[in-house]
Amino acid sequence: MSTDWHRVLAPRSVALIGATGRADNPMARPLRWLTERGFAGRVHPVNPKYAELGGVPCVSSLAEVPGGVDLALALVPAERAAAAVTEAGAAGAAAVVVFASGFAEVGDEGRARQEELVAAARASGTRVLGPNCQGLYDARSRLFATFTGAGERPLTGSSGIAYVGQSGAIGGSVLDVAAERGLDLSAWVSTGNEADVSLTEIGRHLVADPEITVLTVYAESLPDPDDYAALAAEARAHGTALVVLRSGRSEPGRRAAVSHTGAMLGDDTAFRLVSRRYGVVLVDDVEELLAAATMLRGRRGPAGRAVGLVTSSGGAGILAADRASDAGLAVPELTTQTQEKLARIVPPFGAVANPVDVTAQLFNTGGGGFGEVCGIVRADAEVDAVLVLLTMLVGETAMALARDLAATVAEQGPDAPPVAVVWMAGEDGTAPARALLREAGIPVFSSIALAVRVLDAVAAPPGADPAPVEPAAPVSGDGWALLDALGVRRPRSVLATDPAADVDALGGVAVLKAAGLAHKTETGGVRLGVRSEDAAAVHAELSGLPGVTGVLVQEQVPAGVELLVAVDGGRDGWPPVLTVGHGGTATEVHRDVVHALAPVTPDTARAMLRELRCWPLLAGHRGAPGVDLDAAVDAIVRLSRASAVPGLGELEVNPLVLLPSSHVSGVASLTPNDSNATRSDPRHAGAAIAVDVLRTET
Amino acid sequence: MSTDWHRVLAPRSVALIGATGRADNPMARPLRWLTERGFAGRVHPVNPKYAELGGVPCVSSLAEVPGGVDLALALVPAERAAAAVTEAGAAGAAAVVVFASGFAEVGDEGRARQEELVAAARASGTRVLGPNCQGLYDARSRLFATFTGAGERPLTGSSGIAYVGQSGAIGGSVLDVAAERGLDLSAWVSTGNEADVSLTEIGRHLVADPEITVLTVYAESLPDPDDYAALAAEARAHGTALVVLRSGRSEPGRRAAVSHTGAMLGDDTAFRLVSRRYGVVLVDDVEELLAAATMLRGRRGPAGRAVGLVTSSGGAGILAADRASDAGLAVPELTTQTQEKLARIVPPFGAVANPVDVTAQLFNTGGGGFGEVCGIVRADAEVDAVLVLLTMLVGETAMALARDLAATVAEQGPDAPPVAVVWMAGEDGTAPARALLREAGIPVFSSIALAVRVLDAVAAPPGADPAPVEPAAPVSGDGWALLDALGVRRPRSVLATDPAADVDALGGVAVLKAAGLAHKTETGGVRLGVRSEDAAAVHAELSGLPGVTGVLVQEQVPAGVELLVAVDGGRDGWPPVLTVGHGGTATEVHRDVVHALAPVTPDTARAMLRELRCWPLLAGHRGAPGVDLDAAVDAIVRLSRASAVPGLGELEVNPLVLLPSSHVSGVASLTPNDSNATRSDPRHAGAAIAVDVLRTET
Repeated sequence: MSTDWHRVLAPRSVALIGATGRADNPMARPLRWLTERGFAGRVHPVNPKYAELGGVPCVSSLAEVPGGVDLALALVPAERAAAAVTEAGAAGAAAVVVFASGFAEVGDEGRARQEELVAAARASGTRVLGPNCQGLYDARSRLFATFTGAGERPLTGSSGIAYVGQSGAIGGSVLDVAAERGLDLSAWVSTGNEADVSLTEIGRHLVADPEITVLTVYAESLPDPDDYAALAAEARAHGTALVVLRSGRSEPGRRAAVSHTGAMLGDDTAFRLVSRRYGVVLVDDVEELLAAATMLRGRRGPAGRAVGLVTSSGGAGILAADRASDAGLAVPELTTQTQEKLARIVPPFGAVANPVDVTAQLFNTGGGGFGEVCGIVRADAEVDAVLVLLTMLVGETAMALARDLAATVAEQGPDAPPVAVVWMAGEDGTAPARALLREAGIPVFSSIALAVRVLDAVAAPPGADPAPVEPAAPVSGDGWALLDALGVRRPRSVLATDPAADVDALGGVAVLKAAGLAHKTETGGVRLGVRSEDAAAVHAELSGLPGVTGVLVQEQVPAGVELLVAVDGGRDGWPPVLTVGHGGTATEVHRDVVHALAPVTPDTARAMLRELRCWPLLAGHRGAPGVDLDAAVDAIVRLSRASAVPGLGELEVNPLVLLPSSHVSGVASLTPNDSNATRSDPRHAGAAIAVDVLRTET
Repeated sequence: MSTDWHRVLAPRSVALIGATGRADNPMARPLRWLTERGFAGRVHPVNPKYAELGGVPCVSSLAEVPGGVDLALALVPAERAAAAVTEAGAAGAAAVVVFASGFAEVGDEGRARQEELVAAARASGTRVLGPNCQGLYDARSRLFATFTGAGERPLTGSSGIAYVGQSGAIGGSVLDVAAERGLDLSAWVSTGNEADVSLTEIGRHLVADPEITVLTVYAESLPDPDDYAALAAEARAHGTALVVLRSGRSEPGRRAAVSHTGAMLGDDTAFRLVSRRYGVVLVDDVEELLAAATMLRGRRGPAGRAVGLVTSSGGAGILAADRASDAGLAVPELTTQTQEKLARIVPPFGAVANPVDVTAQLFNTGGGGFGEVCGIVRADAEVDAVLVLLTMLVGETAMALARDLAATVAEQGPDAPPVAVVWMAGEDGTAPARALLREAGIPVFSSIALAVRVLDAVAAPPGADPAPVEPAAPVSGDGWALLDALGVRRPRSVLATDPAADVDALGGVAVLKAAGLAHKTETGGVRLGVRSEDAAAVHAELSGLPGVTGVLVQEQVPAGVELLVAVDGGRDGWPPVLTVGHGGTATEVHRDVVHALAPVTPDTARAMLRELRCWPLLAGHRGAPGVDLDAAVDAIVRLSRASAVPGLGELEVNPLVLLPSSHVSGVASLTPNDSNATRSDPRHAGAAIAVDVLRTET
């Protein structure tokens, strides 16, 4: 159903079903706010018990409302909500807000009640926001369709920042704290249980709104990952920053989330990868969410991860350099030209490399040149963002400095790297200067650590994911047939019939494996380096193990660097994830893995290898030759295409054995049971595979 | 020299040498503040140009001050500071504060000037605070011997929190922001260049002050690690919390610090270990420093790392659980008894496991029972600290809640686990409630992430370091003789004379190594598994390598799990550090190391092994037998005693080869060149050593 969200966020008429006359009831707030705070549409309280409420004539039913209804608010208990929805739908409402709790969040009975609600909406052609939500607010239309306590604030501005999220309580915090900081939200929606309308659906409307430059989101569950990806993609397309606070990512958090909403949270790795692909900013609490929104409001984030630091105190500069470094941001030395320019302004006992320490002396002599210093650092080609650290500069000095800095930033224009300020002094002595900076679009923080965490969050991540890869045509098959279909070389293998002859056919030395055992290595079901003359005896021994269904004779892969390559077919609707890691039997010990959305390009595969801690083993380490990286990349790319297999559960290859490049003399160090086949296809010279786990969902 | 710091912080008389009449000069502040703000001692401006200043009679020299001087402030330029110190010393001053800059921080000329200053102090029997400092302030004596801008605040209270640090600018931030939050500092000292008096010396006086319960420290350099350890030990002995913000710990931070102060920062690992030994709280910025001080003010930190979460909003509880989990804090399920008690108060659709979600309903029905809920969680045996998360509760509801919570906390007494609140709503709607909680000793934060980081910082670290170990009697010797002296078994080794016979003497198979080569493995200077019949040929080959000075024949150590064990003899005065890690040739790839102050007890050695990522390899992994842990622990303990070797630079053993315990059948899997000697001394059954690096400083 295509919904006209404009009718919901800027309705010509609002009906309040079950409007109450008890002023102390939070449910009385929407009517009061709608009638007293400049809402331009018509307001119709619906309650047969009253002739009027708050000076507005009541109707006894929705059918009596003249001219129809765009938005209905159901201010009724849970058991009467479905009827209210039906009534609203009949009156032509685009949507009904159901505030009541007592639905899916309270167990089976409530779940049934929630299903009735959805059925009523479908049948009557309207949409439901909620239930168990706090409604919505739009600054431009002065629509107060909410009872959030934060609505008690004046809320007269429109900062270009919007909020949508499942928690009204968290949403209330965002609205309240943002307003206290002079950033009245432009739009605010609490989606509650999301029986019908989801945060992603509302979000897609909001990111297309040209007045909204930042959409902040709180998500406890994202039941439709495709919708989330679509929201992220559309935000990017519209140039709207998307800042997401997702909860329930830790184990105790998940436990709490399950008990809170009953919703499972889905795969965090895939969530992070999808977010990264579309440049979504992920944050860890409400403070960071607001700080990131402030940083991105009406402007782009840093194009890279290099920070220029300008400080009035050596100590603050050192602390900022420490924190930036901890967060994986770079604090590069500024170029010689920049340093020369700075040296003309910065007193001789300051510093011009980065951090740039202008020293208190600059301010004792009037403070002239501080803005210019920041401007010079901002213009340095090495710098993606400028962080200004101020200590005890208060009163008139503070105002002069703020004016100077704001003028420089305005002069350089919005395309220069972003500038943020950390002011380590009481609010009271610096409030006007802080306000001046904020009005100039320069965010002001009180904590170095918070400013740096937010810079980290808004800057492009290291090794950013490239554009999506079109999945290859689906291949089918299972087990090794899949590897063959993907074009990945694997050890030749036969079910033993004549063990000695089978081993001879594989070059005279082979691996014998007991089929049908779960943990072959631990139970003695794998024998390496079996020669043809010993094959019959080993075969007999393995066949005697309990539970064995047969014996495999397998080409023995020479020793090499072992990787883990796994493709998770996607869980709970999230896209497939490729994992590449340091493999072998000690995978859990190494804990050295990186992830990407599958399939990947060769560039991404190569970047993943470089991100591994074990990269030196691949590149060549302490005199050992490196592996054939082209072959490794090719095998990873091919394996990643398993993501296109319909119904794939998980494909795990461990070990993917990487051998020295055929172009280096190190090949000579291969053990004698290196089959010539290893070098027969030059494209796969260095990659051979032993499959441990291969499972497709049925 | 024993200094009476009471005469400095609560002087009977203060002389201001070079007091100025120019009111707009920051240097005019001390006189104004000392005369107008309740300082009880005598105040003597010293300036021959004036008869009086600010209504106080001037003297033309210090000699004229009647009754002598306890504290002198040198308000003179750098070039006149030494003379002022001499004059003050002659007048009997316990100390002189030198505010001027232009000393060691500006290069050689300044350094010479600083030396003159120290010489003048020594000669005249006084002490120097500074130079290049912002002086000191004491709330109890109303001593404003500083020009910090933060001194413009009323500063009438005394919170029990003190500050000492090298940066006056950072110190000003601490003083200013703390005061704005109602926590006027009790004492405040800026030590600047520390030509004479160090922050550790002042700090040792302050931690002994019974009114001071938290000492906060900002340190750019700690030139005397023993002094730092003494400060930390005395703080612990007096029950005073020590909160330290140390800067310059990252590479860019160090670069900035060196350019700022010229001081090298010393070893961060040893600094952390010493801090941990004495329970010092380490923080990362001024906000965290103040938050930690607030948490520890007048009360102990959490005894463990388990947090009980109580929330008014499911979402906030989940976020807090996420953040706590990220920080390595535990969020344990509460005991059954606790959950049963909670279930009588918490509405049925809330949660009682942890996080405890009381739901907004509890407040809609008056909020009664919220304090009781927090009290029940606080009394749970599993809980070391309680974090309360509040969202949009404002106005009267907020006040009632705060009163209720404060009453419960007071009733349970100060020995129950600490309680902190995160209030995610604007300050203005919650200010009186926040103030009430703070007065009740309950810290209030606005950010979940900050509260959790501070809980992490103040809680005992995981695997806390036990009491110091007395170093063993020093052993001497170098190279392998040292290992022998420490009682650590090492491979037998001889300089080859008759290669075949030498190999035979070691069991028929041995390692031959070219002596005199730096990177033996990479240059082909190591041959494993040489049999006696091949020994002469290999010997000839190795002898032919360029630069070889001889050939070692060494007992071949069987394959096993390889550890790195290193003892750093201590740098820049910091104590020796033991490093234990996953060893072998891929040490840099594993990056799997833990540290402790050396020497260690067996318990610490065992705890270190358990902290390694590679612990499963030691304990037995995927069917492989574990190593002989007792032997490993014994070897580590013995090696750690190398810290007692006078002048030790570094002892690095890599690999320390750990073999399967002699008590498990896995020993049978040892390769044939396993010398019988391996099992001859049962105490060292599983540990054999090959030494790569062994160096003693001369």
